[in-house]
Amino acid sequence: MLHFADRLIQQSKEKESTLVVGLDPNITYFPETLLSSASTPKEISEAIYQFNKLVIDAVYPYVLAVKPQLAFYETYGSYGIQTLEKTISYATQKNLLVINDAKRNDIGSTASAYAEAFLGENPMAADAVTVNPFLGSDGLTPFIDKAAAYGKGVFVLNKTSNPSAGEIQDLRLTSGEKLYLKVSKLLQTFSKNTVGDSGYSYIGVVVGATYPEDAKCIRDLLPHALFLVPGFGTQGGAANQLSPYFDQNGFGSLISSSRAILYSYRHAFPNYWRSIDVDTLFETIQKKAQEANEEINQIRF
Amino acid sequence: MLHFADRLIQQSKEKESTLVVGLDPNITYFPETLLSSASTPKEISEAIYQFNKLVIDAVYPYVLAVKPQLAFYETYGSYGIQTLEKTISYATQKNLLVINDAKRNDIGSTASAYAEAFLGENPMAADAVTVNPFLGSDGLTPFIDKAAAYGKGVFVLNKTSNPSAGEIQDLRLTSGEKLYLKVSKLLQTFSKNTVGDSGYSYIGVVVGATYPEDAKCIRDLLPHALFLVPGFGTQGGAANQLSPYFDQNGFGSLISSSRAILYSYRHAFPNYWRSIDVDTLFETIQKKAQEANEEINQIRF
Repeated sequence: MLHFADRLIQQSKEKESTLVVGLDPNITYFPETLLSSASTPKEISEAIYQFNKLVIDAVYPYVLAVKPQLAFYETYGSYGIQTLEKTISYATQKNLLVINDAKRNDIGSTASAYAEAFLGENPMAADAVTVNPFLGSDGLTPFIDKAAAYGKGVFVLNKTSNPSAGEIQDLRLTSGEKLYLKVSKLLQTFSKNTVGDSGYSYIGVVVGATYPEDAKCIRDLLPHALFLVPGFGTQGGAANQLSPYFDQNGFGSLISSSRAILYSYRHAFPNYWRSIDVDTLFETIQKKAQEANEEINQIRF
Repeated sequence: MLHFADRLIQQSKEKESTLVVGLDPNITYFPETLLSSASTPKEISEAIYQFNKLVIDAVYPYVLAVKPQLAFYETYGSYGIQTLEKTISYATQKNLLVINDAKRNDIGSTASAYAEAFLGENPMAADAVTVNPFLGSDGLTPFIDKAAAYGKGVFVLNKTSNPSAGEIQDLRLTSGEKLYLKVSKLLQTFSKNTVGDSGYSYIGVVVGATYPEDAKCIRDLLPHALFLVPGFGTQGGAANQLSPYFDQNGFGSLISSSRAILYSYRHAFPNYWRSIDVDTLFETIQKKAQEANEEINQIRF
């Protein structure tokens, strides 16, 4: 079975892309042509699948992975999860990696069940999942073990991109360091022991695009970790801040953009985005993905 | 709209119970009569629903709430979520409160989508949801706001019951306190501002049954918080340790037990639990729930 990081790096080279598109479907931003008269969870979930399919068709030549944000599917219950499953399957057919942005966390048999759900041979499983480290190492090992068994990846929240991230993650410990660096240290042994031929581990970390200084500190501790970097685009992370996220080979980070690409038509056509047709929608999203990828590649090399 | 804590305290008084039964369906522990030849996600999900229904019928006279553990439903994808939805609906009909043990966490529009999914008028929504505080206050406020709008509850992880919880939660800060108490402090203002007629807030905390000393420290900081206390029974938390979790009125905590009740028949009939009939299953689970509730009530008053 191929190591997750090795698969990822190979596809990244082939596609010349480290871009991840977040699939955060918010129907209040959908053009009328997609939503039409959908109102039940079932109808809305079908409209979301059509949107995701269009987005995947538009972006896949320029994009390494898609990252469904679980909350937007759970809103519609089992119908939303059906859409998630169909979206994962469609993206995989298009040769995109799929990272479930689920931020799951639990312990013991429950953590094992989450790991099985997201990394096993199960309906919602994909190539990788994001997890939250608040419960310590025995909340992480079930995911790491499952990733090893199935050739999948795990991305552990380390420093998130939101304004209040620091309330917990930047707390200073008596050891002198901030909490988020303690999380990085907790991962050091796991990371070293899981490196593939590409030089990267299948245990990555989530590091917000808004904290380039923190990214440098994390990189020092975790030289083999792939960074999943949300917050590029709408959350205020600009491309010129991204250079510390890449290593000397121009790899080491996946840059994630969601709303800036998905809803690019709202900025392109501020006065009549609700009534644009499907072709315009497709072209606008595709152009934005292509531009974002070029912008990132200029910084990588 | 009735305040979540007020509803909860009223029902707790009527039922003379602060017991919560975790619904963590693990089919490897199911008797043959329930599982029969189920093998697809759809068939297994249906077997799980039959198990949950039997458990709810057996325990509801002695139990305040049930707590579905999301991982065990997500394992079976959209079929598992259908079972979760039906379970929530059935438990509600039986006048049980339902706490989704989802440990969700995210920021901004994603946190709002989770809050809508679990606390709004949505297919998976119930009476309360557990959340993880690692992202700071702007990861919590969307849940708190939604709980206010819909008369629902939020339980924030504060000190979990697992062995490695301390790796993060017990880290000592330069301010002198441990991290978990900083989480309690972060919640103080939210807690004070959300107290109902019962004297309790609709923002509770999760405090493991294995840490009675820590529970006392958290109680000092959050006198109005309802504690959701997992780890009673199989995780090593004994009833005689629980007294610090209750206040002078004998309220203030919900004691959660999962496997010790759900799979009590495995201990009652170690040699032939796989082949017991439905009546024996029902009676064994019911007896265990009744005993657990009596054991807890002896400590409360």
